[in-house]
Amino acid sequence: MAGENEDGSRIDALERRLRDVEDQLAIYRLLAAYGPAVDSRTEAATAGLWTETGRYDYGGAPLVGAQAIGDLVNIQPHVGYVERGCAHVIGMPFVAVEGDRATATGYSRVYLHDGDGWKVERTSANRWELERTQSGWKVANRVNRLLDGSPDGRELLSRAFVQSNGEETDVVS
Amino acid sequence: MAGENEDGSRIDALERRLRDVEDQLAIYRLLAAYGPAVDSRTEAATAGLWTETGRYDYGGAPLVGAQAIGDLVNIQPHVGYVERGCAHVIGMPFVAVEGDRATATGYSRVYLHDGDGWKVERTSANRWELERTQSGWKVANRVNRLLDGSPDGRELLSRAFVQSNGEETDVVS
Amino acid sequence: MAGENEDGSRIDALERRLRDVEDQLAIYRLLAAYGPAVDSRTEAATAGLWTETGRYDYGGAPLVGAQAIGDLVNIQPHVGYVERGCAHVIGMPFVAVEGDRATATGYSRVYLHDGDGWKVERTSANRWELERTQSGWKVANRVNRLLDGSPDGRELLSRAFVQSNGEETDVVS
Repeated sequence: MAGENEDGSRIDALERRLRDVEDQLAIYRLLAAYGPAVDSRTEAATAGLWTETGRYDYGGAPLVGAQAIGDLVNIQPHVGYVERGCAHVIGMPFVAVEGDRATATGYSRVYLHDGDGWKVERTSANRWELERTQSGWKVANRVNRLLDGSPDGRELLSRAFVQSNGEETDVVS
Repeated sequence: MAGENEDGSRIDALERRLRDVEDQLAIYRLLAAYGPAVDSRTEAATAGLWTETGRYDYGGAPLVGAQAIGDLVNIQPHVGYVERGCAHVIGMPFVAVEGDRATATGYSRVYLHDGDGWKVERTSANRWELERTQSGWKVANRVNRLLDGSPDGRELLSRAFVQSNGEETDVVS
Repeated sequence: MAGENEDGSRIDALERRLRDVEDQLAIYRLLAAYGPAVDSRTEAATAGLWTETGRYDYGGAPLVGAQAIGDLVNIQPHVGYVERGCAHVIGMPFVAVEGDRATATGYSRVYLHDGDGWKVERTSANRWELERTQSGWKVANRVNRLLDGSPDGRELLSRAFVQSNGEETDVVS
């Protein structure tokens, strides 16, 4: 019957559209967990955001492997920041999904307790490269650069608007 | 017919998945209304975010009841902050839904106009405990603590990774 | 058959609900692209967020037209901010959709590199008026006002809680 086939097509379309929505929200969820994980020094939750072989490139030699990244919460300067009072805030990112890979581009800030207020200790551009794994979306690579006037941060942000095939990212559809 | 039964199951699954997505977005929406409500001193909108018996625990004796919480916008120090120029910014939270209850963990900051810029007057860890009511998700309890190096803020953030039954929260699926 | 008609109704409902979810996420996506676009001085991506006849009202004579708004990234003070190191951060907004129009209310902050940290150079209330176009949601008008104690910012935020027909916005459903 026509009606039945039509239902099937509509269900197909709904499943595709819902998956797109779920992907974007899962990536929000992943990045929103980062701050609470590191500021509470919860090593397992921090490591669990990355793939086993994931990387964190913050300007020097990149950290490689979820465990090495999780270990960050137990060493300086992080331990000192937490003792002084800090917040690692990841802003709502711009997410672009291509199949089983995605990028999320946005800002992170580190607020540090200072006198009778909080100092903005770091403001960085972030590019999160994500992969869909059997246990959900995970970070394959985080690249961040200070927005201190050097060109790296700007270049990182500009890559939000280019797809992996070199074509322009469609922001608004 | 097999096809028809199959459609029904697929529709069931879509309804469940869509409800999960709607829950997460409704909670984002609720928290995103907080800043505009308090910074415009809109008492009804502020009170309306909480359940009738909702609580706000900011370190001292908790405020109890939506009306008492809404009244905050009409008293000091809030009135003074608004007159000086302030922004209560709630960052994108980490949301975990369990049936008709949920938690949202993240950061709030109060920016206060100061000289030729804005001072970060407060940076806090937040745990929002939410309930699904007949008129949508509402705040049953907001707990926040300054991230000033005292252990309370860190402890609050770490609870994001533990479910109500004591098991680990699944961040990435 | 009853079952088939019922499936159709359920699919209708899913399509409506999914569209609501997609609308809210598309608007998040649009606003999350703003910072990366302007801080990387990507003129086309900046202009592309607005409708052709879109406006940006930041207190003086409004800018009119997507191209004029995109050009902002090539003039002072913007070029100087970028050279010094800046982040235009748009917080998670409160979104209200009415058919093919929507508003998003929230905060923007400009962080500017300053000494050994970042200064909060501007903190503003924002009201984004959006339209659904054939190429997705776009900004028809952005109005922002500094939260420096003047009444304009507060008034802008309070409008989040009023629909276009004058009725109260339903925050929580």
